[in-house]
Amino acid sequence: MSIKDVIFSVLLVFIPISLAAEFLQWGALVVFVTACLAILPLAAWMGTATEAIAIVAGPSIGGLLNATFGNATELIIALVALKAGAVNVVKSSLTGSIISNLLLVLGFSMLLGGLRYKEQGFQSTVARINASAMNLAVIAILMPSVVNFTSAGVDEPVMQRLSTVVAIVLIIVYILTLLFSMRTHSYLYDVGLAGEDNDVAANGSKPNLFLWIGVLLGVTVLVAVESELLVGALESATKQLGLTELFTAVILLPIIGNAAEHATAVVVAIKNKMDLAMSVALGSSLQIALFVAPVLVLAGWGLHQPMDLNFNAFELVAVAVSVLIANSVSSDGRSNWLEGTLLLATYFVIGAAFFFHPVIDGIG
Amino acid sequence: MSIKDVIFSVLLVFIPISLAAEFLQWGALVVFVTACLAILPLAAWMGTATEAIAIVAGPSIGGLLNATFGNATELIIALVALKAGAVNVVKSSLTGSIISNLLLVLGFSMLLGGLRYKEQGFQSTVARINASAMNLAVIAILMPSVVNFTSAGVDEPVMQRLSTVVAIVLIIVYILTLLFSMRTHSYLYDVGLAGEDNDVAANGSKPNLFLWIGVLLGVTVLVAVESELLVGALESATKQLGLTELFTAVILLPIIGNAAEHATAVVVAIKNKMDLAMSVALGSSLQIALFVAPVLVLAGWGLHQPMDLNFNAFELVAVAVSVLIANSVSSDGRSNWLEGTLLLATYFVIGAAFFFHPVIDGIG
Amino acid sequence: MSIKDVIFSVLLVFIPISLAAEFLQWGALVVFVTACLAILPLAAWMGTATEAIAIVAGPSIGGLLNATFGNATELIIALVALKAGAVNVVKSSLTGSIISNLLLVLGFSMLLGGLRYKEQGFQSTVARINASAMNLAVIAILMPSVVNFTSAGVDEPVMQRLSTVVAIVLIIVYILTLLFSMRTHSYLYDVGLAGEDNDVAANGSKPNLFLWIGVLLGVTVLVAVESELLVGALESATKQLGLTELFTAVILLPIIGNAAEHATAVVVAIKNKMDLAMSVALGSSLQIALFVAPVLVLAGWGLHQPMDLNFNAFELVAVAVSVLIANSVSSDGRSNWLEGTLLLATYFVIGAAFFFHPVIDGIG
Repeated sequence: MSIKDVIFSVLLVFIPISLAAEFLQWGALVVFVTACLAILPLAAWMGTATEAIAIVAGPSIGGLLNATFGNATELIIALVALKAGAVNVVKSSLTGSIISNLLLVLGFSMLLGGLRYKEQGFQSTVARINASAMNLAVIAILMPSVVNFTSAGVDEPVMQRLSTVVAIVLIIVYILTLLFSMRTHSYLYDVGLAGEDNDVAANGSKPNLFLWIGVLLGVTVLVAVESELLVGALESATKQLGLTELFTAVILLPIIGNAAEHATAVVVAIKNKMDLAMSVALGSSLQIALFVAPVLVLAGWGLHQPMDLNFNAFELVAVAVSVLIANSVSSDGRSNWLEGTLLLATYFVIGAAFFFHPVIDGIG
Repeated sequence: MSIKDVIFSVLLVFIPISLAAEFLQWGALVVFVTACLAILPLAAWMGTATEAIAIVAGPSIGGLLNATFGNATELIIALVALKAGAVNVVKSSLTGSIISNLLLVLGFSMLLGGLRYKEQGFQSTVARINASAMNLAVIAILMPSVVNFTSAGVDEPVMQRLSTVVAIVLIIVYILTLLFSMRTHSYLYDVGLAGEDNDVAANGSKPNLFLWIGVLLGVTVLVAVESELLVGALESATKQLGLTELFTAVILLPIIGNAAEHATAVVVAIKNKMDLAMSVALGSSLQIALFVAPVLVLAGWGLHQPMDLNFNAFELVAVAVSVLIANSVSSDGRSNWLEGTLLLATYFVIGAAFFFHPVIDGIG
Repeated sequence: MSIKDVIFSVLLVFIPISLAAEFLQWGALVVFVTACLAILPLAAWMGTATEAIAIVAGPSIGGLLNATFGNATELIIALVALKAGAVNVVKSSLTGSIISNLLLVLGFSMLLGGLRYKEQGFQSTVARINASAMNLAVIAILMPSVVNFTSAGVDEPVMQRLSTVVAIVLIIVYILTLLFSMRTHSYLYDVGLAGEDNDVAANGSKPNLFLWIGVLLGVTVLVAVESELLVGALESATKQLGLTELFTAVILLPIIGNAAEHATAVVVAIKNKMDLAMSVALGSSLQIALFVAPVLVLAGWGLHQPMDLNFNAFELVAVAVSVLIANSVSSDGRSNWLEGTLLLATYFVIGAAFFFHPVIDGIG
């Protein structure tokens, strides 16, 4: 068992604690913190179960499963928040998730990998294609907000329609990206993704399909339950901590939602598998932008919670500069500890800016 | 005769039809649509005639001719619109032309080329220098608008003077770019531009100079006549179609003005001559930014139609992101179908944003 | 003696002239111009003295000395202006200094080097890392302004606190950058920085430490004295010249402050040492952003002159586009005269925009 596994196993204890905190009314702050901690190991188990099923299902359906459930934790938290009407929390956690994958996850991977190896190389072709796809996704997601800021204001129905068009384009591009990476140009992506770093595969024997489907279902239900606790306690816990809801949604929630990817990326970077670390970090942020965000826009219709892509201007700038510096650092196919530090410093500065950002009418 | 030639020949029939529509008063919509269709083959003939004369005139004057008449159709439409006082239509069609060359033409070339060849390569040195020149051009063109947006507002005479300074700088840079590509560093550009893809050269015999000068003059007059019809019918046709003038000027007009380059770029991309396709698409957008736009600013003085470079904020963002993603996709000197799709998706999203953009006082 | 040395020696005569102008009250304009001219040779001597001491002190302390005193002239002018309460002049001269290093110094180096050599190469790895560090620095420095522009406005104490956080992050990153370039990855930077281009080293004999420390101290005092004259005369001289204080601070002051680096970079570029020219130009702008700017923010506390990082929006755009085009031109590790011209044209257009920019309440 690795240190990572031990930590995640210990954290499982927060599942009963958080439930106790909710029902024995220990206060919103305790519920919020324990639910956050409980979600961390669940997200990791969700990843393990998805991978196990993917191995049995074969590369095609397996790849599809990974692509769909890769950010399942974040999707569930966001859906629960959306159902509860916390539309601005959902939007801010999307931008936060993109930022944290590009800066925090990639930054720690490059820093910790770079402390052990002078220079680390990775496939710059894939990095470039991912960067271009990310550029498109970010341009598309931010376009409705830009229309709003560059006019006297856009009516909500128009904003909804434009957001829906963008969402549909993004989902189509996402499907084409999968087609590209799994079919027509799969040789570019052949970086040993399902190799020895896979906890299940390392075991040797073929995983039991029904067992893991059961695990996945159970974990999904638990994530949903903990998400309800987390979302329910969010507003008053945030107030008690003296934070704005914007800061909590942009900085805290994505750290929790991405903890599993984070751990994976850092571990493989330290093993000098920078290709895999890049793939986890960039892949996760791409998935948020091309899949999770549009799904939430479309889900908003079903849940009667109009969810558009109208972000506040500072989120827009924060995402744009994150993409810019991540492109700049990763475009040459080489990394070192200083480049990791630069990403982390950018994250810290953006985080500080969100911390001090005075919020106008609510979070958005 | 290629399919392209057949289509363009058939379209010639719209020249008499559009004239009939105008004089028999069939309505603005019919005039607008038929004039648009009539311009398509004329633009193609203009290109063929310019190339024929260029062959007789030799590489130096020929290169200059191509560089000056390459976007002659767009220049004529813009001059006619400028004379008619439709300054905002002219400005929006400039931004639209840059966007459509960078995203639509390049996107279709990469997509259709990429469907036939797994990966296509091109000279990244030239692509980079073009990208840098494009960056300068776009920064320069957008600078007056930025001065306006970042202050309490700029008086019209100041805006005019700043726009004129920018126009003069751009024309100087354009001349230097020609000097660079045709004299000091012509070896970088040696990608067979006047090769077998040239309809006239493929013929074998030396073209008749006087014949082609006659053709060029005749076609130029016809383009000017059709442009008068198009510009005259624009406003009410646009209203009947339920479109804003902004959308028409940014999206529809450039598609018509660039159709010839578009066809050429796609055809050569399918023949795996990606260098030439890039050169057509990027070269055309560079020419718009470094030559057509400043010429129109200076022509505004002569026509007593003050034409400045004060664009609306959304056009500014649209051009900036187009340059950004075109840079991102083309910087590595390789292309594939996904990259083409990304450019097209960006174009579609920007187009949708222009479609939904609520216009404040007129088009600008 | 090189031409550069002759010019700088002759300019020393402006030290007594400027003092005479001040005490005999020849008018603010004469004081301003003569003080500017007097600072040029002093800055050059400061560089020579620092290098001489660096040689005696050995590479480690020497590198540190160069890193700390490299922009000493600008730091002294800025501190004097800050003490006099001209906070906006200080801020604008910082942005101007970054812009002029990236566009003017680099542009002239590439243009003049490129007129002699068809293509010049340089270490693109270092250029890329510098570009990434510059991106971080610019993002960080501009973040407080962005928070201000994207909200209903930020209270001055919050702006101060956020600026201080940014300043501390930047200084930490600066120290890490030194650690990277002088210790862990010094092999990347081994481009003969202290070679035959060093006036002192070329002499052959080991420089006299105490002599040069004396020179450094003397020159520092003189720069400070001339800075007092310059800052004192700035406001009314600017008015007499018909310029805005913004234009003077962004365009004129940095040309004076950077003249020494400018001369060095151009001279080494003409000698085909493009690596060294890049290192001087990019290194100087990095030092401004990572060291001089944060030191001034912290010094503001000590001098009771609250200095925050709240720039005006046009400065923000100007710095962003300068970084963008400098990245674009330098990313491929090759340069030619056209690329130099593009940088200079961008500088000229930005300068014209600052010239025409209507100033709202004071300079900022």
